[in-house]
Amino acid sequence: MINPPEELLNFFKKEDRFVLATHESPDGDGLGSAIALSMALRNRGKKTVLICKDAIAEQYWFLPGQEEFMTLQQFMLNISEYSDYNNLVLIDCNNIKRIADESRTSDLKFKTTAVIDHHETKSDFGDIRWIIPDSPATGLMVFEIINQLGMSLSEDMAVNLYAAIAVDTGNFSYENTNADVLRIASELAAAGARPHAIHRELFESWSKGRFSLFMKVINTMQIQDGVSIVRIDQKMFEETSTSEADTENFVEFPRIMKGIKVSVLFREIEDGYFKLSLRSKGNINVAKIAGEFGGGGHKNAAGCKIRADFETAKREMLKKLLIAISMEQ
Amino acid sequence: MINPPEELLNFFKKEDRFVLATHESPDGDGLGSAIALSMALRNRGKKTVLICKDAIAEQYWFLPGQEEFMTLQQFMLNISEYSDYNNLVLIDCNNIKRIADESRTSDLKFKTTAVIDHHETKSDFGDIRWIIPDSPATGLMVFEIINQLGMSLSEDMAVNLYAAIAVDTGNFSYENTNADVLRIASELAAAGARPHAIHRELFESWSKGRFSLFMKVINTMQIQDGVSIVRIDQKMFEETSTSEADTENFVEFPRIMKGIKVSVLFREIEDGYFKLSLRSKGNINVAKIAGEFGGGGHKNAAGCKIRADFETAKREMLKKLLIAISMEQ
Repeated sequence: MINPPEELLNFFKKEDRFVLATHESPDGDGLGSAIALSMALRNRGKKTVLICKDAIAEQYWFLPGQEEFMTLQQFMLNISEYSDYNNLVLIDCNNIKRIADESRTSDLKFKTTAVIDHHETKSDFGDIRWIIPDSPATGLMVFEIINQLGMSLSEDMAVNLYAAIAVDTGNFSYENTNADVLRIASELAAAGARPHAIHRELFESWSKGRFSLFMKVINTMQIQDGVSIVRIDQKMFEETSTSEADTENFVEFPRIMKGIKVSVLFREIEDGYFKLSLRSKGNINVAKIAGEFGGGGHKNAAGCKIRADFETAKREMLKKLLIAISMEQ
Repeated sequence: MINPPEELLNFFKKEDRFVLATHESPDGDGLGSAIALSMALRNRGKKTVLICKDAIAEQYWFLPGQEEFMTLQQFMLNISEYSDYNNLVLIDCNNIKRIADESRTSDLKFKTTAVIDHHETKSDFGDIRWIIPDSPATGLMVFEIINQLGMSLSEDMAVNLYAAIAVDTGNFSYENTNADVLRIASELAAAGARPHAIHRELFESWSKGRFSLFMKVINTMQIQDGVSIVRIDQKMFEETSTSEADTENFVEFPRIMKGIKVSVLFREIEDGYFKLSLRSKGNINVAKIAGEFGGGGHKNAAGCKIRADFETAKREMLKKLLIAISMEQ
């Protein structure tokens, strides 16, 4: 059980206008958590704005309230309208850089800033900081905030929080799934979230293009000493009319095989520049390894970028991973 | 919430020796439910024997206590040792034919017979019958029995019941997943079942051969008007050192795509002879279509065999499926 700090609860009680922001390439946990918190605050007569640098991927369009999100660009264009929204809350991230480019950051002025997050890699941003790396999902933390503030849970909030938790626990399959996660999921189902319907939207609604992309990507798989490596080239997106958003969960798939300890996805951003997603099992800390390349994340799910040709990037990453695997045994 | 009948609870309280049997081709729900009930009864000083016609598939060997199962054949060979085990309980089935061939059935003599099941009632077997077709898993019913008898839940029982529920709800993804299922899963996790470890055993333990076979099969996919068709040739099994058992759930995978209404898997038995597996969504009745080819099954999951070359077999099947799809709209 996790209890939100009094300071954070008082902040939501006392203040009236909030900008709620989640990270770039927003995922189900960031979106669902932000939307549910926004709904709870509005039910209490507060005003909120939901912002995100990037557009919302199609698979999340079923989330009730997602249409309230505006891009950072829209927000900046109309910033004069929001001059009295002087409280910023980062949700599912803790670094201001994950919501805005540095050139933009200087334009954002707030009275108080708060952070609600469960990522392991921390920045020192935020006047009020609630970061619980052990929490399986930010959605669970928002559930506790809503509970502690004595707010009732609407069906729409329940759908958003259930989706948040389902995404960050791999529908209750990852190592982070525990009795609390399942208990809260049960309470959300009792409040109106329909588990199968949400699963279908999140995990069974791939476009043909996405499926073709998946096949291309999985066909690139190489396995070495318990590490699976797959690769996405720019031309694969062109050939299948897809984008980065369509790659969500691809890195999870190789884990279906016995003996895979780490799964890595290399996505080519431009010639000689790769974004990597890493997933590990057990005690192999990929956040630490991603950190060595300037990235970060959670123990078992992290990311980073490497500027090098594919073979070099792969060799460098494999070297670190094989050391981590050998040390774990 | 489901309450076991008093008659059934009294039966377990008063009697001392039980034969607990689950159905042929035993699955996680049947095995886990039977093992957990056996453990609970033994904790109370009772004696139990676990029997099943067929051997247990490798994916269930992690269930603690599964080694206690004996095949029906072993049981019959030593039946004199068990002459005072005069109570039979069918678990996760309700027809005596699903635990023994008819020739054997006449040899089985019991004082009292009971049935704990969630399948639709098809036989009238059993002196004490508790059949709840609306229950997502027999494991949930056994959980209630253990609860109502005031027995404490050991870690091993929790693992067995969690696995039972995970298998029959598709790890909390099928339509039958509700607040009660998640609440009980939470209680089982609190009692020591580790969700990720169980998920890994049940769903993430594919051999490399099975994975290679999967890739070959999915690469054959053709889509036409909402029908996905994939094909397995005999040489694919040879190339990947796999067998038919490794194809379990392959036909489910194409349903990950939006717009797929029917998924068909053609498996080549011999030159010009195919076994087909069919899965449909919603009201498209594939049992009826399979029936036209001499097969059968359930509305959304059926099978048949066709003797023809692949292109002819595909054309014949597609014709029927496209009519069924057009009629559904």
